[in-house]
Amino acid sequence: MLREAIYHRPKNNFAYAYTKEELHLYVRTKKEDAKEVQLIHGDPYHFEKKSGWQYKKTPMRLSGTDALYDYWFTSVKPPFRRLRYGFELTDGNETIIYGEKGFRDEPTSEDMGFYFAFPFLNGIDVFTPPDWVKDTVWYQIFPERFGNGDPSLNPEGTVPWRSEDPKVDNFFGGDFEGIIEHLDYLVELGITGIYMTPIFKAYSNHKYDTIDYYEIDPQFGDKETFKRLVDTCHDKGIRVMLDAVFNHSGYYFPAFQDVLENGENSIYQDWFHTREFPLKEKPYPNYDTFAFEKSMPKLNTENQEVKDYLLGVARYWVEEFNIDGWRLDVANEVDHQFWREFRSVVKTAKEDAYILGEIWHDSMPWLLGDQFDAVMNYPFTEASLNYFARGKMNAREFSDELTKVLHMYPDNVNEVQFNLLGSHDTPRILTESMEDKNKVKQLFLFQLSFIGTPCIYYGDEIAMTGDHDPGCRKCMIWDEEDQDQEMFSFVQKLIQLRKDIPAFGNHGDFRVLHADPDENTLIYKKSDETTTLLFILNPTKSSQSIPLPKEFQDQKGTDLWSEETLDPSASCTLEPYRFQIIQY
Amino acid sequence: MLREAIYHRPKNNFAYAYTKEELHLYVRTKKEDAKEVQLIHGDPYHFEKKSGWQYKKTPMRLSGTDALYDYWFTSVKPPFRRLRYGFELTDGNETIIYGEKGFRDEPTSEDMGFYFAFPFLNGIDVFTPPDWVKDTVWYQIFPERFGNGDPSLNPEGTVPWRSEDPKVDNFFGGDFEGIIEHLDYLVELGITGIYMTPIFKAYSNHKYDTIDYYEIDPQFGDKETFKRLVDTCHDKGIRVMLDAVFNHSGYYFPAFQDVLENGENSIYQDWFHTREFPLKEKPYPNYDTFAFEKSMPKLNTENQEVKDYLLGVARYWVEEFNIDGWRLDVANEVDHQFWREFRSVVKTAKEDAYILGEIWHDSMPWLLGDQFDAVMNYPFTEASLNYFARGKMNAREFSDELTKVLHMYPDNVNEVQFNLLGSHDTPRILTESMEDKNKVKQLFLFQLSFIGTPCIYYGDEIAMTGDHDPGCRKCMIWDEEDQDQEMFSFVQKLIQLRKDIPAFGNHGDFRVLHADPDENTLIYKKSDETTTLLFILNPTKSSQSIPLPKEFQDQKGTDLWSEETLDPSASCTLEPYRFQIIQY
Repeated sequence: MLREAIYHRPKNNFAYAYTKEELHLYVRTKKEDAKEVQLIHGDPYHFEKKSGWQYKKTPMRLSGTDALYDYWFTSVKPPFRRLRYGFELTDGNETIIYGEKGFRDEPTSEDMGFYFAFPFLNGIDVFTPPDWVKDTVWYQIFPERFGNGDPSLNPEGTVPWRSEDPKVDNFFGGDFEGIIEHLDYLVELGITGIYMTPIFKAYSNHKYDTIDYYEIDPQFGDKETFKRLVDTCHDKGIRVMLDAVFNHSGYYFPAFQDVLENGENSIYQDWFHTREFPLKEKPYPNYDTFAFEKSMPKLNTENQEVKDYLLGVARYWVEEFNIDGWRLDVANEVDHQFWREFRSVVKTAKEDAYILGEIWHDSMPWLLGDQFDAVMNYPFTEASLNYFARGKMNAREFSDELTKVLHMYPDNVNEVQFNLLGSHDTPRILTESMEDKNKVKQLFLFQLSFIGTPCIYYGDEIAMTGDHDPGCRKCMIWDEEDQDQEMFSFVQKLIQLRKDIPAFGNHGDFRVLHADPDENTLIYKKSDETTTLLFILNPTKSSQSIPLPKEFQDQKGTDLWSEETLDPSASCTLEPYRFQIIQY
Repeated sequence: MLREAIYHRPKNNFAYAYTKEELHLYVRTKKEDAKEVQLIHGDPYHFEKKSGWQYKKTPMRLSGTDALYDYWFTSVKPPFRRLRYGFELTDGNETIIYGEKGFRDEPTSEDMGFYFAFPFLNGIDVFTPPDWVKDTVWYQIFPERFGNGDPSLNPEGTVPWRSEDPKVDNFFGGDFEGIIEHLDYLVELGITGIYMTPIFKAYSNHKYDTIDYYEIDPQFGDKETFKRLVDTCHDKGIRVMLDAVFNHSGYYFPAFQDVLENGENSIYQDWFHTREFPLKEKPYPNYDTFAFEKSMPKLNTENQEVKDYLLGVARYWVEEFNIDGWRLDVANEVDHQFWREFRSVVKTAKEDAYILGEIWHDSMPWLLGDQFDAVMNYPFTEASLNYFARGKMNAREFSDELTKVLHMYPDNVNEVQFNLLGSHDTPRILTESMEDKNKVKQLFLFQLSFIGTPCIYYGDEIAMTGDHDPGCRKCMIWDEEDQDQEMFSFVQKLIQLRKDIPAFGNHGDFRVLHADPDENTLIYKKSDETTTLLFILNPTKSSQSIPLPKEFQDQKGTDLWSEETLDPSASCTLEPYRFQIIQY
């Protein structure tokens, strides 16, 4: 076996406490190299005089495969919540034992130091995101563009709804009343959580350049209206998540204005990362900013006053308005220590609040249990778009990528990962799909049957188009004749299935069974103790006959979409861009 | 190149902030596979319209090799403290680019997501251990056995000093006065830090079974004496580290006694991990303990009262007695959250206190900057004993193991790792060496010229013997004729060299230049900007001629031990168990 490919390290995605009784353990081997893998494990202190360390063997199952590696998984419940362990790998020719100190021919009962250690399963260190998130279907709202319910709040220069294309600096007057008015629309769709981009007083139409974190932007309404919005949502079974832009303030944030004015004499001088005075903006700002954006000065989150201010904000909107979560903008550029204290403040205010970081890359260092509950799952987004919409990835590559996505973090994280297909920062999925609605349907089907908590970007469910920002921020369409009603019903039906059948959503184990790199067809299975669902997808422009996995060929099933009973069959024939979901 | 062997993941030993300006980056390849490696790196937001992402290339150097892998290193100072990066690997035949998303043939200037991210160098997240530790030479004292300076404190049944072998339960009356009396001996040896095993009121002679964490054990003295001990140490340039046994209390800890007595009605019931009532001890204790030791009930460090109590203890001895550090017993079995709060309390009380965890295995999860400053470096201990004392490892294997040890953690950790050769928990090094003092000298030479903060176990410097506990806990020998004076002078001289020549100790870069698996000879280099030292060791029973590395063959050097000038030479001939240290 290729020793160089074999990998394990405890206390990350390879070994973690799933609960305070149960450990999840993974080991990686070269693709198609090991035939059988067993976990060798026992209590670190359980020795017997004659035979030394008392260990057991537990078989591990292949949990996934990507381009280069196989991944093997098992879970164990150590009776005294402590474990020393290693891996016995067999390929038919040789058997090797892998532990922290490397490789051996046989397990040792003397040298405990050879093995990996999970020293103690302390409950408080277990990653425990809020339970409700697993069953939530999110809807992202960009408040300036969802509904104008109170024209009296329109900012100066507001143009009529849908009268022109969105621009960097135009306003259409979207507000809270506009959202409240349309909550029943969301209920009808099946939504149980809304995520709103920033609502605090700011300068721009996107409000990512905050002026006052304690005030509602006047174009959206006042605190009384916001309270009514949250309460109405809760009455209708919808949770509310806000956007916390704590990495940077806006240019017109008074503290920054004071520094601009008073330079090193400003009492707010240490609220930012200034490199010299006076502040200047060219060629690059001489103060840290988001990217090189002069109007977004980076906040010094190591400064106790700034911490007190921002943590106060985090607490205020939870305590006073009963919001259910915070989405953290540019979360990766703020210090870890700040997020640890943020978690403590937010969870103290509301034990089951959801903390979601905006991070586009590998986020393991933020997902160890002391900071976030999840991150925005852009690796999921990219893989899905590349396969279904852009044709940049074949089915095999897509399947490899899904293995990577699911093996990147602990399962407790995966179950609450925020699976989006698009947002205010990306082109809309219909535009990504070259306006082919069939592709969008396949995307929705996949998103709503995958592990994680799915989020629909406002308007995608009625087939709105829009290119990269600002194009993707068009006004929501409320004229029914301009909405794609069929797409709405399609998404609505998927959401209902996700709710009705636990295995369809987050409570089913996900496994790819067929991923044909030439035909580009895909079969995956979702299953729990009672239900097995087979998802068969033809995301291509040709009709395809897709062989069913052997174990299903002689079984009767039900077409979940048409509710027809299906006779046993060796294959499934699908027209272009069609799919079948078979329940067994 | 073997893609399966290539590995990098940010925010651990492979990529970390060395300072708030400087990033250290490592990548792993298969041994002797890549010929050249370059870092591709740039600011995540630095794009130009025509050419896309603006990146640079920086060559990486081979930083070490072990049995399976090569490790490549470079450091960079990103001007805006943010970095996206990948690795360009060349073996002469092919060139590949490695990033978070896998492999490519060429760098991309468009898809930032392909690269690894170090999103922002926040100062507060930088791992910063106390500076003084790098230059400290520690001495471990087991207080019951170091010196009996006040016989009036002798516990009942105390036997005369050295009158019998140490047993699990005998007492020799060691105390604080005994330590104070002998501080000048430590000063003469060159010691600048003492680590004492527990001093708080306890039942046993080792005091790991605490009864009262706020009281000095009466056999050692009182608080006034302890204060005098610490102050006298400080006057003599010696720091003081105490042992915090927070994983478990002793059997006679009043809270545990209360639970034994009152069962589930005890107000201390939740101070421990009880599984059922009444408490019983067989076949295994029905409450969590250290190992299966009924007299050491595990404390529930998730309980706020327990936390308040123990964190109060941590603060008390720092604030009231000005101690300089805490060594944490069984640190790996206590929850991470407790240690995070512990760090905050201790560093608030004394900014440059040293926090040292007792962990025998891979400790990366405790060394991320939010918990410990270092751990006891048992992998160093094991490798050193296996090579120098036990003959269980050849020079090549030893060198491989040193590469592993130095690549396991960030450099900021390595510089303060607690490098011990033995302790109260292991046989003494002379006993490990089959009583061959030549081997012990090679061990001391290596320990005192390696990266980290070395610790000498009391008595090893005068060649005391002793097998596994309790054998290794003999009374310290103060009769000069029974002390090995030559060994003392040898160690004294090494310590002096470490102090006099920065490159000898922690301020020199360490590199193995020759590790002969057959002859078992070893050459390593320590160097800084001004000095290069070559350490040539013959830890075998044969005379050996050891070829010098080419770049040193035509250079004059000085024998650091004899102070003789050495003519250029192609090799160095060493008698059995001899060494030469050449300064260039």
